[in-house]
Amino acid sequence: MQTSDEVKKALEVVFKANADFYKTRGFQRRIGYGKKPALLIIDLANAWTRPGNAFTCDNMDEIIDTNQQLLKAFRRRGLPVVYTTTAYDVTDRNVPGDMGLWHHKIPVEVLSVGSEAAAIDSRIAPQKGEHVIVKKRASAFHGTYLSGMLKTMGVDSVIVTGVTAAACVRNSIEDAIADGFRPIAVKEGIGDRVAGAVEWNLFDIDAKFGDVETLKNVLAYLDSNDINV
Amino acid sequence: MQTSDEVKKALEVVFKANADFYKTRGFQRRIGYGKKPALLIIDLANAWTRPGNAFTCDNMDEIIDTNQQLLKAFRRRGLPVVYTTTAYDVTDRNVPGDMGLWHHKIPVEVLSVGSEAAAIDSRIAPQKGEHVIVKKRASAFHGTYLSGMLKTMGVDSVIVTGVTAAACVRNSIEDAIADGFRPIAVKEGIGDRVAGAVEWNLFDIDAKFGDVETLKNVLAYLDSNDINV
Amino acid sequence: MQTSDEVKKALEVVFKANADFYKTRGFQRRIGYGKKPALLIIDLANAWTRPGNAFTCDNMDEIIDTNQQLLKAFRRRGLPVVYTTTAYDVTDRNVPGDMGLWHHKIPVEVLSVGSEAAAIDSRIAPQKGEHVIVKKRASAFHGTYLSGMLKTMGVDSVIVTGVTAAACVRNSIEDAIADGFRPIAVKEGIGDRVAGAVEWNLFDIDAKFGDVETLKNVLAYLDSNDINV
Amino acid sequence: MQTSDEVKKALEVVFKANADFYKTRGFQRRIGYGKKPALLIIDLANAWTRPGNAFTCDNMDEIIDTNQQLLKAFRRRGLPVVYTTTAYDVTDRNVPGDMGLWHHKIPVEVLSVGSEAAAIDSRIAPQKGEHVIVKKRASAFHGTYLSGMLKTMGVDSVIVTGVTAAACVRNSIEDAIADGFRPIAVKEGIGDRVAGAVEWNLFDIDAKFGDVETLKNVLAYLDSNDINV
Repeated sequence: MQTSDEVKKALEVVFKANADFYKTRGFQRRIGYGKKPALLIIDLANAWTRPGNAFTCDNMDEIIDTNQQLLKAFRRRGLPVVYTTTAYDVTDRNVPGDMGLWHHKIPVEVLSVGSEAAAIDSRIAPQKGEHVIVKKRASAFHGTYLSGMLKTMGVDSVIVTGVTAAACVRNSIEDAIADGFRPIAVKEGIGDRVAGAVEWNLFDIDAKFGDVETLKNVLAYLDSNDINV
Repeated sequence: MQTSDEVKKALEVVFKANADFYKTRGFQRRIGYGKKPALLIIDLANAWTRPGNAFTCDNMDEIIDTNQQLLKAFRRRGLPVVYTTTAYDVTDRNVPGDMGLWHHKIPVEVLSVGSEAAAIDSRIAPQKGEHVIVKKRASAFHGTYLSGMLKTMGVDSVIVTGVTAAACVRNSIEDAIADGFRPIAVKEGIGDRVAGAVEWNLFDIDAKFGDVETLKNVLAYLDSNDINV
Repeated sequence: MQTSDEVKKALEVVFKANADFYKTRGFQRRIGYGKKPALLIIDLANAWTRPGNAFTCDNMDEIIDTNQQLLKAFRRRGLPVVYTTTAYDVTDRNVPGDMGLWHHKIPVEVLSVGSEAAAIDSRIAPQKGEHVIVKKRASAFHGTYLSGMLKTMGVDSVIVTGVTAAACVRNSIEDAIADGFRPIAVKEGIGDRVAGAVEWNLFDIDAKFGDVETLKNVLAYLDSNDINV
Repeated sequence: MQTSDEVKKALEVVFKANADFYKTRGFQRRIGYGKKPALLIIDLANAWTRPGNAFTCDNMDEIIDTNQQLLKAFRRRGLPVVYTTTAYDVTDRNVPGDMGLWHHKIPVEVLSVGSEAAAIDSRIAPQKGEHVIVKKRASAFHGTYLSGMLKTMGVDSVIVTGVTAAACVRNSIEDAIADGFRPIAVKEGIGDRVAGAVEWNLFDIDAKFGDVETLKNVLAYLDSNDINV
């Protein structure tokens, strides 16, 4: 469900007022780019990127294109790329297992380890040496080895894309700054499946957890000498 | 900043459409109450509950009253109560320390360990045997002993209140379900400081991470035989 | 390398004196069995259980037999079984990745994801519905979803076997009690590859982190009404 | 209880044989110093450093002296210093709380938050800007903000001292390497309270988790240009 122009307009009014208010309180600061970023692509697997799944998201043409451009830039600079997908070994809702409690809220029982649905979209296929983390929770950091791996890679920041804005992307960004990695959310590379969710979650992220930047701005940074590898 | 009636109306329209859509996709399920809940009160310390601080929130009369009623019910049943506050040992923005990176986004440098600002509001003062966790990040679980403690208490669910909806409350609920505790957010007990933030964050929470319930419903549960201690 | 009789005797003298001393100080208490245990089998994959690998351990006949008996008892009672193995996507020591820093101490570069070496020993093969966690560090809990999964299974204790006493078994037991699960180490089911390591690590574990019990004792418990599922 | 000469001799024989064996297998590698170390002093609070407590350790003259020399060197170079202590809000063994399950193994009920016993020994008193983390578990990293803080400090390694070798020091070193920090254990700065425990735990640490170095060697490093701050 795309966000209607009417809702967009209403949200823009409230975001503007909130941003003015945040400014007086000293929120919505710029965290800025780091010197060694990793690209963190959240859940751009077929269940989210292709039609017909409970998890299918909107605006995939722009999101895939954005990620292709980012991948090209990261690979050119030899910077780390990490993908996540979400999938489970036991998908019987009556058997307690690696779904934890999440199937009591959302239909994670459709996501099996090793299935086509859980595989990264072939249009942005991982290359040798790039990491695909099979996570069980919303955050890419929760119950995974991501944080320790990024630390040993010397990474100080994460450029984040993927879906959904309201769950896995946002929660990963919250954990990234908590663990000590500067998060940069790429506006055109992040999606969701319900109206408004991209807008209000990016607003909250930008106010409190990481900077929301345009693809153009991020590509310019990736081309610059600010990166030190 | 309270949410204007106009914005409220626009949000209600989009929430209604999204909820209908989520239903067709199998989201927004009910996780339900547990058998042994803990009350988790997020950051109702003076910096958030009293006027004049960068962190001051809105609607405190209702929020304090709600928490007083919940505390009474939890204490009567002998159920665990955990408060959090957020405070730092080193608040010099130029010295890397326990603020991590967060002062690069929000003004956490005004929150000193042991200060009046960081103390729990006296209207809901902790009693002997109740826990106050001084956290450093948005989530009550991140970098704290909360999860292990709740586990050994035999707790299976958390009734969550406090501030802010867009940061510490939401992130704590995301971590609660990830760690295996059923989260219940109490509508009247949760606040923020910018327009719309309570509304859209409770909407996202209810869709994906925990059930949003009214105080009346939660009090009835706390009075019932569904609790097994 | 088996522990020689001479070394065993010297260790027994020091353990006896230490145990007497610990008693006067109030250490070496009994944590006791829980009501719902999970079996946690650490790294009994071919790299550790079969000859010819850098990770090959000793005493495998007894260890495999012990685990077969435990598996039988757990399966009969319908109790959860979790295996771990340790394996990596990137095993080039010059490329920072999921090995983290560990290859700077031990030869983890020989452990590839999906390899025969990293597969669970066929003599104790996992059955449908049992979990195999591919971990990256010594502890079965570090950077994995184990803790959250056990929590949602209603598990309160872990019966631990496998290798090595000095690294993955011990570190998993330390994390188990820290996360709120009573650890029971099964003496005959735990091994290592250097002399003394089983003995002194089980001594430290029993003194501070979990109870060391004989297979006979554990099997009697698994057959008893102390288990409540 | 000091380790007797007889036991020391028996252990040295087995360590020598094990070290030879580890060499053929590719274990016991050198992880080496980092470019920006933090000093991590584990539990040198009065309960451990002074006589008369259940937690009192041996060899404190040498350990305190070693830590004084290290503190001097770290402060001269302006490098981060972090102390830990272990203490609890609820020390009633019949009330589940922040002791978790640990009082079922060791007498942590004697360690109250804010007590003299839990205060850092005045001979190595923290200075302004240095961090004291009150932990609840053996590891300085478990359930604390240590890892995220070290990451934002740009720290890549930890020089570790304190007590006890068999529990808090060892478990902190295991977590340090798991989280991506090179651990260096300072031989003369680490103690315990039972015979052999320092010896066999330092042996295991050196084989698998971090380098054990002499004070002399560490001081030379701290004086060198290998440090880059």
